[in-house]
Amino acid sequence: MSLVIIGSLAFDTIETPLARKEKIVGGSGTYCALAASYFTQPKIVGVVGEDFPQEMMAYFEKRGIDLAGVKIERGKTFHWEARYGFDPNQRKTIRTELNVFKDYKPVLPPDYRQADIIFLGNVDPDQQDEIVAQAERPQLVAMDTINLWINSKPASLWKVLEKVDVFFANDEEIKMLTEEINLVKAGKKILSRGPSFIIMKKGEHGALVLGKNFVFGALAYPCEKVVDPTGAGDCFAGGFLGYLDKINSYDKASIRKATIYGSVMASFVIEDFGIERLKKLSTLEIKKRFDEFKKLVSF
Amino acid sequence: MSLVIIGSLAFDTIETPLARKEKIVGGSGTYCALAASYFTQPKIVGVVGEDFPQEMMAYFEKRGIDLAGVKIERGKTFHWEARYGFDPNQRKTIRTELNVFKDYKPVLPPDYRQADIIFLGNVDPDQQDEIVAQAERPQLVAMDTINLWINSKPASLWKVLEKVDVFFANDEEIKMLTEEINLVKAGKKILSRGPSFIIMKKGEHGALVLGKNFVFGALAYPCEKVVDPTGAGDCFAGGFLGYLDKINSYDKASIRKATIYGSVMASFVIEDFGIERLKKLSTLEIKKRFDEFKKLVSF
Repeated sequence: MSLVIIGSLAFDTIETPLARKEKIVGGSGTYCALAASYFTQPKIVGVVGEDFPQEMMAYFEKRGIDLAGVKIERGKTFHWEARYGFDPNQRKTIRTELNVFKDYKPVLPPDYRQADIIFLGNVDPDQQDEIVAQAERPQLVAMDTINLWINSKPASLWKVLEKVDVFFANDEEIKMLTEEINLVKAGKKILSRGPSFIIMKKGEHGALVLGKNFVFGALAYPCEKVVDPTGAGDCFAGGFLGYLDKINSYDKASIRKATIYGSVMASFVIEDFGIERLKKLSTLEIKKRFDEFKKLVSF
Repeated sequence: MSLVIIGSLAFDTIETPLARKEKIVGGSGTYCALAASYFTQPKIVGVVGEDFPQEMMAYFEKRGIDLAGVKIERGKTFHWEARYGFDPNQRKTIRTELNVFKDYKPVLPPDYRQADIIFLGNVDPDQQDEIVAQAERPQLVAMDTINLWINSKPASLWKVLEKVDVFFANDEEIKMLTEEINLVKAGKKILSRGPSFIIMKKGEHGALVLGKNFVFGALAYPCEKVVDPTGAGDCFAGGFLGYLDKINSYDKASIRKATIYGSVMASFVIEDFGIERLKKLSTLEIKKRFDEFKKLVSF
């Protein structure tokens, strides 16, 4: 039972029509690991600069997160700035300062190589490929990506896709990658190349999981108060993979429940800025919302 | 047990990237009544011109649809032309020839006035209001609308909303009407003015039903082959209201099942042009797909 998460640890500057938060802690690895920490004891692979807060590292450790794979480099931590419109689905990246992330190549420390589950965050697909090669006996490899790689390195991306079990992507990315308009057709095209499951994230509309002879849909929790959507996708992955690592089972019933836990974690993180809501979260609240998801769709 | 549907009977000319269909039978009343006819014996209120095919009237009757409320006027039937893009969510109206619909005012025939359920299709809200006044003891009044009335007659629209129990609308219409970006907030605003339930239609993303202290979500059936999306919303309403009329119950459990039957009927109609798929549909297929919807969301 072990989950390794490759992702970014960052400072985010987030502006919404109601507030601006300067350099709060964020990053895909941060969100994913914190969400997963409610189910298992994840290990992070990533890099920070000397300016990354010690308290944050202490908080990670308090949550049972293994930081042996986190390098501290001379320089500044990755900094991303974004602005959301009145419609929280509309996001504009204002600034991306890669800083220590620029020349960073993620490497699995020796004792991470036995991990059961590897999550390849949205780094360069060639780097994702190298990580897969370093894993010695993964039960499940999951990956995420971003438009940047779909546009700039599609061949590398397809190469990694052939080696992974679970592909997380939003609906636009799936359509773009396959040049298909129908989401189900697009998904089947990707499945034919390797992955067992595609988790199609549709934001406020939920997620659709497509496998060979398998389809499962999870609604998004109808949320009246969306404060900051940052990290929703990463928390989805963290909840999904954290749950699978906890129960150590990958059958279809587990995938269904994992999808709901992913949706639950995503629904919490957007209720406040950055990781604020996660910090206040209890396992009881998670269980309660899981049950609410059941009521939401039962007929 | 009786359901009255106020809606259009029309000729539709539909163009998709793959085919063009000239003047096939369509209209909101047609779609809604045919979908409802799999559950109950609906009554239509509408108008056609002398050119409306006799065979179609005979087919309505064969399906148990009461046509006493359909006027045949001298002139041509309402004709609507639309074009869909490669993305079937993108529709452009090319032409609207109102013809006999122009000066038509729907009136409930005397023996329709005792109806249990009244469905006010997307006609002028002032006309909807007159129909409501003619109904003598409705158990449930449902209404639909279109952007045209939201923009041109918002006050009339709100006035009818105060008198109805169920409001069908797509997510964009709900946001536009309430000037709210968050769908749940927007829905609550409408609920505070009258309706018990809002059926928020989200196309390929399904439907969200919001009531006072009630929320239920139905995914859309993941459809690989969308031939012609025309009539999906009307078939949703037909399946929803037809089922409620059949079981003669309006509690929350019934609303949940009705929503799924609405989704089922919508998922069928888009598989072929116009009413072609409905014509070939069996009650067994409907039951089968209803069960598939359950599998789609169970965890």
